[in-house]
Amino acid sequence: MQGKQKMELVHPETTRLGWIGTGVMGRSMCSHLLKAGFRLAIYNRSPEKMNDLIHSGAVGCASPMDVAKQSDVVFSMVGYPTDVEEVLLGEKGVLAGLRSGGVMVDMTTSRPGLAVRIAEAAASKSVVALDAPVSGGDIGAREARLSIMVGGDQAAYEALMPIWKLLGTTFVYQGPAGSGQHTKVVNQILIGASMVGLCEAMLYAKQSGLNPELVLKSVSTGAAGSWSLSNLTPRILRGDFAPGFFVDHIVKDLGIAIEEAEKLGLQLPGLEHAKKMYEYLQSLDYGSSGTQALILALARLNNVEWIH
Amino acid sequence: MQGKQKMELVHPETTRLGWIGTGVMGRSMCSHLLKAGFRLAIYNRSPEKMNDLIHSGAVGCASPMDVAKQSDVVFSMVGYPTDVEEVLLGEKGVLAGLRSGGVMVDMTTSRPGLAVRIAEAAASKSVVALDAPVSGGDIGAREARLSIMVGGDQAAYEALMPIWKLLGTTFVYQGPAGSGQHTKVVNQILIGASMVGLCEAMLYAKQSGLNPELVLKSVSTGAAGSWSLSNLTPRILRGDFAPGFFVDHIVKDLGIAIEEAEKLGLQLPGLEHAKKMYEYLQSLDYGSSGTQALILALARLNNVEWIH
Repeated sequence: MQGKQKMELVHPETTRLGWIGTGVMGRSMCSHLLKAGFRLAIYNRSPEKMNDLIHSGAVGCASPMDVAKQSDVVFSMVGYPTDVEEVLLGEKGVLAGLRSGGVMVDMTTSRPGLAVRIAEAAASKSVVALDAPVSGGDIGAREARLSIMVGGDQAAYEALMPIWKLLGTTFVYQGPAGSGQHTKVVNQILIGASMVGLCEAMLYAKQSGLNPELVLKSVSTGAAGSWSLSNLTPRILRGDFAPGFFVDHIVKDLGIAIEEAEKLGLQLPGLEHAKKMYEYLQSLDYGSSGTQALILALARLNNVEWIH
Repeated sequence: MQGKQKMELVHPETTRLGWIGTGVMGRSMCSHLLKAGFRLAIYNRSPEKMNDLIHSGAVGCASPMDVAKQSDVVFSMVGYPTDVEEVLLGEKGVLAGLRSGGVMVDMTTSRPGLAVRIAEAAASKSVVALDAPVSGGDIGAREARLSIMVGGDQAAYEALMPIWKLLGTTFVYQGPAGSGQHTKVVNQILIGASMVGLCEAMLYAKQSGLNPELVLKSVSTGAAGSWSLSNLTPRILRGDFAPGFFVDHIVKDLGIAIEEAEKLGLQLPGLEHAKKMYEYLQSLDYGSSGTQALILALARLNNVEWIH
């Protein structure tokens, strides 16, 4: 299906959409599609998480296959690669229900190799697949300010332009199937390193007797500045470890990153260290906290109590 | 001298300034002071690097002591802590020439402990000392957009406000002697981690077959974004390894950071890794390259040729 044949732009009057996975991210994204007037069939493993959207006009379904049977384009946004495989390729999965010429778009952060396998399985049934993971977290989803990284059929990417614009502010076609997931790996390598540096820097600031709030003023605007520093350090300093992005999910993402790097023959020791730290944090029972809780793992390793 | 007594604001008509160290950073900073109308006496170990400034009206001197003899406030911006010690506390150093009530301000990135020792030596001669390292590199110095992190006598910090405004856009009083240097350590911990992440991310992007320029578009605006990513990755991608900030200097800075962390009983493994990588890069003879050359060390470790 990779090719230059033109596909028609999706449009609320002619395109029926489907969505698998209405958790924190999925729910916000679905609401943007409904507001734009799209017909939307949805499925979620825990059915009660569909209620709000059904109330807003979405059609609740009993399986991903049922969603696919009444859709032209189906999106998935679930937890882990095993979930992706089941909802797309499983017995009652999307591919089992989608018409020839239909499109499926996986927005979960998942394995590049799985994205390739999905695209191949789709092609064998004359279905088109895209991998389109996002960055920007719950806030980005809510405010439709996501960065969307797309791999797969380029004509389908172009045809879905109205959708990207409803969900995000940055959307880039990165190349063939798996390229969206590879780009997300790059994103998570950057985030892991950034969190390690931020926590070491703040622990040093505290222990050297500085006032971390004043330090943040000095370092956040210059060459040491970053999104994490500006957005997550204030949460660390007021002891707010509520999840914007779950520790459990960054552990998954960094695990995928290391496996992929190994497949390419790459040793990335900074990435390996970030993963070890987050696994340690997870072992301390902070899997459901936000990624900024990493400071607690570093403090524990140093026998320091992090008092905010 | 630590205290609340008020000092008069420095002013071109009443304050004579001195400057030790007219390298890349110092030269730009001196030119801002001259343009503002300050009388300026200068010294540099390699005298030919004073020529441009002398041509612009600065008075060239034969030693730091000679500078101090004709100044009320003397700034130093030299290479290494040993240089700082010599130009401030040495036989022909600033302290040997400065009048009682004079001020000396070290803007070199140096050891917090040395800053404390300088402040004590100064106090014993009724001289005031500040440690005031900066972030922002050659561009920040040229465009007077530095972040200046100040430790020491607070009244002197206030009195020098007109100078901070001529040199920077962010200036924060961080606390007693050494606090400016501790804050700079925090800054360099952040930069080290950020560079490690950036290089691993870009090597992964390249080896996984992505187009790094497109990847940069996807990842630079979201949660993975940072000053380093936006400003140094484009240089890496076009193979520009010219120094904005020398590898030799980041090795010095990360070395100070690790020593200081150890004094506080802190193990910071991300910082240790960044230092090891930069030392390896230095051993490959890239000491005079810019910090973005770290990608070459990572590529070498992975037996990959970085072709840009």
